[in-house]
Amino acid sequence: MSIAKENEIQNIVSEILEDYKKDRPIDKAEASTQLDEKAIVDVIQKLLRILYPGYYRRKSYSPHDDYRNLSYFIEVIVFNLSQQVSSVLSRMPEFAEVDEPVIQREAQRLVFEFLHRIPKLRDYVNSDLEAAFDGDPAAKSMEEIVLAYPGLLAITIYRIAHELYTLRIPLIPRMMTEYAHSRTGVDIHPGADIGRYFFIDHATGVVVGETSVIGDHVKLYQGVTIGALSTRGGQKLKGKKRHPTIEDNVTIYSGASILGGETVIGHDSVIGGNSFITQSIKPGTRVSVKNLELQLDESLHETVQSKDLSPEGWIYTI
Amino acid sequence: MSIAKENEIQNIVSEILEDYKKDRPIDKAEASTQLDEKAIVDVIQKLLRILYPGYYRRKSYSPHDDYRNLSYFIEVIVFNLSQQVSSVLSRMPEFAEVDEPVIQREAQRLVFEFLHRIPKLRDYVNSDLEAAFDGDPAAKSMEEIVLAYPGLLAITIYRIAHELYTLRIPLIPRMMTEYAHSRTGVDIHPGADIGRYFFIDHATGVVVGETSVIGDHVKLYQGVTIGALSTRGGQKLKGKKRHPTIEDNVTIYSGASILGGETVIGHDSVIGGNSFITQSIKPGTRVSVKNLELQLDESLHETVQSKDLSPEGWIYTI
Amino acid sequence: MSIAKENEIQNIVSEILEDYKKDRPIDKAEASTQLDEKAIVDVIQKLLRILYPGYYRRKSYSPHDDYRNLSYFIEVIVFNLSQQVSSVLSRMPEFAEVDEPVIQREAQRLVFEFLHRIPKLRDYVNSDLEAAFDGDPAAKSMEEIVLAYPGLLAITIYRIAHELYTLRIPLIPRMMTEYAHSRTGVDIHPGADIGRYFFIDHATGVVVGETSVIGDHVKLYQGVTIGALSTRGGQKLKGKKRHPTIEDNVTIYSGASILGGETVIGHDSVIGGNSFITQSIKPGTRVSVKNLELQLDESLHETVQSKDLSPEGWIYTI
Repeated sequence: MSIAKENEIQNIVSEILEDYKKDRPIDKAEASTQLDEKAIVDVIQKLLRILYPGYYRRKSYSPHDDYRNLSYFIEVIVFNLSQQVSSVLSRMPEFAEVDEPVIQREAQRLVFEFLHRIPKLRDYVNSDLEAAFDGDPAAKSMEEIVLAYPGLLAITIYRIAHELYTLRIPLIPRMMTEYAHSRTGVDIHPGADIGRYFFIDHATGVVVGETSVIGDHVKLYQGVTIGALSTRGGQKLKGKKRHPTIEDNVTIYSGASILGGETVIGHDSVIGGNSFITQSIKPGTRVSVKNLELQLDESLHETVQSKDLSPEGWIYTI
Repeated sequence: MSIAKENEIQNIVSEILEDYKKDRPIDKAEASTQLDEKAIVDVIQKLLRILYPGYYRRKSYSPHDDYRNLSYFIEVIVFNLSQQVSSVLSRMPEFAEVDEPVIQREAQRLVFEFLHRIPKLRDYVNSDLEAAFDGDPAAKSMEEIVLAYPGLLAITIYRIAHELYTLRIPLIPRMMTEYAHSRTGVDIHPGADIGRYFFIDHATGVVVGETSVIGDHVKLYQGVTIGALSTRGGQKLKGKKRHPTIEDNVTIYSGASILGGETVIGHDSVIGGNSFITQSIKPGTRVSVKNLELQLDESLHETVQSKDLSPEGWIYTI
Repeated sequence: MSIAKENEIQNIVSEILEDYKKDRPIDKAEASTQLDEKAIVDVIQKLLRILYPGYYRRKSYSPHDDYRNLSYFIEVIVFNLSQQVSSVLSRMPEFAEVDEPVIQREAQRLVFEFLHRIPKLRDYVNSDLEAAFDGDPAAKSMEEIVLAYPGLLAITIYRIAHELYTLRIPLIPRMMTEYAHSRTGVDIHPGADIGRYFFIDHATGVVVGETSVIGDHVKLYQGVTIGALSTRGGQKLKGKKRHPTIEDNVTIYSGASILGGETVIGHDSVIGGNSFITQSIKPGTRVSVKNLELQLDESLHETVQSKDLSPEGWIYTI
């Protein structure tokens, strides 16, 4: 490397090191308890194989290997997940004075507690799988749903994360649902409370907030928000129920927003696409957008043929 | 490992193995015909290089290698894709009694049939590339579009998947479009029938349903749904035309939803953003949202300065 | 391989090679200056570690390694990014006659110029991190935001890309923001001009156009479009201000669209969800959708219980 280049690099490094000393949140540098995102994704992958024993397998797999494979997966999960849980526990104020081996034992206890819940988890996930097949005429087989439906993937990862969340493990559940968000466009907070037979079709853009309560047999389409009315209160709103309650057998079509912690959508209701709802809806109600009239301008016919529309020529009446 | 820990793991494994015996869809365990998602993604990657010979190359590539490279790519695709097609065919009822070598020959025949269609495929994809460049003033070069436009990527993978779909190969086309969905946020069902010069700008959140018919020179923006009116009929609706027809030269702006199997958007129409359309529209019509009035509350000026809005203080009139 | 199979492959290769000769945009084959997407992603990853020194580290990291690590990262970035910048410069018309070493020196000069801006970049990114924490009651810690908020990731990558864009480096900034788009569903054009304390909650589906101007303390929710009114003019509109100006302290709720180069949203305004705005709004205004009335059909109660709704039975009034 030329001396000029080396000097430039050294200057840049010095500028950045100087900048690190400003003690802002971004300058945080304690690294000993860093979480390992790859380890968490690996835990998710192994859990998916455990949940769906016949779908996510390698070709070389033989059904006779069930016992051996499961033992191996569980061992790896116990090791990796305990380590990550240990890491997040050790930075909580209530564990500040606690010895490392005690924290590790507590982490392992939580992981075992979680693993004992797998049969319950599979029961929920099986209901979601059935809901997806029953609800979509484009679905050709159960296998297609497991292998190609992002909605089911997002729900399954949410269900895993939710169990860890109810065990009061911080941060890791959120990293899991964000992994799902990144892969599927579905953002379900692990704190949400969601019943059986839950289905999200087409998936992209769905948001379900932290304090949402959703019953059984609920079906959402792409772009649906189950959200808060306003978060201008910021951190002062922490812990309050800020998101709606959706009762059993409700269908919510694409692009609809249901907002507010006191909003309840009664059971057996159907919410039309693009609806915007901030008040409670009685059971058995069909809601659709009414006054969204369209302006039809049929004189356009020639103009588009003869010349480009200038931006000014294009009017949206509001 | 401590004995206590080993016992716990063994208990968990036993609980899960017991749970596998319940014979629900989730318990499905036949593994011999599993599809290999990585092999399918590899086929897509190689096809992208074949379709766009100058764009997806490694630095070390020399144009003189065209023949050798192509032969290699085609050989690998024939091998991998035939294997996957064999695997999906062998589980179809009509092949239940057929010998493995016969299925393999049929799979290879379909793959060759598909590969002979590459020039036709490139003709369509070239028209999509031109549509993207002509349609977006932010596009600086063709290369930018190939390398950085998720809309073109999603359309190209759809075009590959659609050819396999018309050859009646199950499941694999859906896995391909879901790979595109995951990378781009665009969910085009491989069954959709889409003309030349198709462009999707910004891409995220677009959904095009299985029985949609779309003409030439159609342009969609982010968040557009070409969908079904209701899928409450579930699996009973299978095979029916449930999605709209969009004729030539139609532009559909962001967030618009066009729904229903009998809805036809006439040629040369322009559909404004956030429109919600469930009826047919005559050719040459410009549609925009009309009665979506806004409530302006200018007294807010001081309040936002002096105090936070409580969630109750924030009103959406519906 | 059987001779029949080998012949088929040779035929297919010949058909494709023949097709490559048609000289359409898709047939472009000059490969010597290809960009390396993996190298660009690696540059982003290293920059994220430099920007957030305490968050993206490996477990094995020790804070005492700061100097050595930084030097290493900077050296790798100088090498890889200069190579990519060289590659894009060399195909610009103004460099057509320029010698390779001159282009390489210019590329390296631009990369050093960029790296000197890292402290300024960290100042902006720190303000974004604070905005995210202050603005979201669901956020439990700064660390959760860095590790699990796609909005912050998208903004950070945009900020990197924007610096390269202002240095007039073509294509690479767009590849960077598209990498962010693919991971987060947020599509911010590197040309947009965005102030400090910028926050995007839930992220998916946000689009911010090339000529947008956004002030300080602006907060967006999922599905917001800051877009152009019409791009029917296509390449003829290149360079014009086509996207809105959003002044300081504006909050824009989910699904809202703000369109047009002359549209200005005055400071301290609040734009309600699903709004559709193509005209300027005075400072301190609260905008919400007014006439979007809902049609409630409570007679549905029995029907959903007793029979499936046929698609015809489902009415959206428009």
